[in-house]
Amino acid sequence: MIELNFGKSSDGLIPAIVQDHSTGDVLMLAYINKLAWEKTLETGKAHYWSRSRNKLWLKGESSGNVQMIHDILVDCDDDTVVYKVEQIGDAACHTGHRSCFYRRVIEGNLQVEGTPLFDPSEVYGKK
Amino acid sequence: MIELNFGKSSDGLIPAIVQDHSTGDVLMLAYINKLAWEKTLETGKAHYWSRSRNKLWLKGESSGNVQMIHDILVDCDDDTVVYKVEQIGDAACHTGHRSCFYRRVIEGNLQVEGTPLFDPSEVYGKK
Repeated sequence: MIELNFGKSSDGLIPAIVQDHSTGDVLMLAYINKLAWEKTLETGKAHYWSRSRNKLWLKGESSGNVQMIHDILVDCDDDTVVYKVEQIGDAACHTGHRSCFYRRVIEGNLQVEGTPLFDPSEVYGKK
Repeated sequence: MIELNFGKSSDGLIPAIVQDHSTGDVLMLAYINKLAWEKTLETGKAHYWSRSRNKLWLKGESSGNVQMIHDILVDCDDDTVVYKVEQIGDAACHTGHRSCFYRRVIEGNLQVEGTPLFDPSEVYGKK
């Protein structure tokens, strides 16, 4: 097992950058701990540690939009990884956008780019 | 000024993913606070907050390898940004590699890809 430096942060979490394996677009960033890292290597599906729910999170467990791992890169300090993935269902963001990074800084303001690919209330249920 | 959610983390830092503006390769990840964010917007050069030195860090201040900002994307939660940059001097990593993510997971092991573009001891001085 490849050892990452989870001890670097006080909460034992390190960031995982998620990139579309074919276009190179950054889809999202989430956090992993040792358990999420091991589950990802074991299953080939991206697992994270949900900071809001404080539990292991298989991306797509609610929406079905899982992320199939194509490649994993590790940085020089062993404290950040890149997951190159195939995004099932096209959209990675809980807003329905393909990428969480759907806003661009234009002259000091944020401009939304693209339109959601699904309606979050249909996928996650109304709250 | 665009307000990011620096308060989400206990240390006031949020991650900035740095991507080559032409190839889409992820070059590095570093952290920003409000000061670094403002300096980046103001100057068009990537600034970070160095966690090891606990000070504002103009990337390239020692090596000359500054990062010229081409585009900035902000995520759905206002707690992560993507800087699309032109990397002056070609290499972003302190090891001399173009990207900090120069190791790939192959069958449970890390395989180094590519060779350093500069000798760190020449750029940063011997210690």
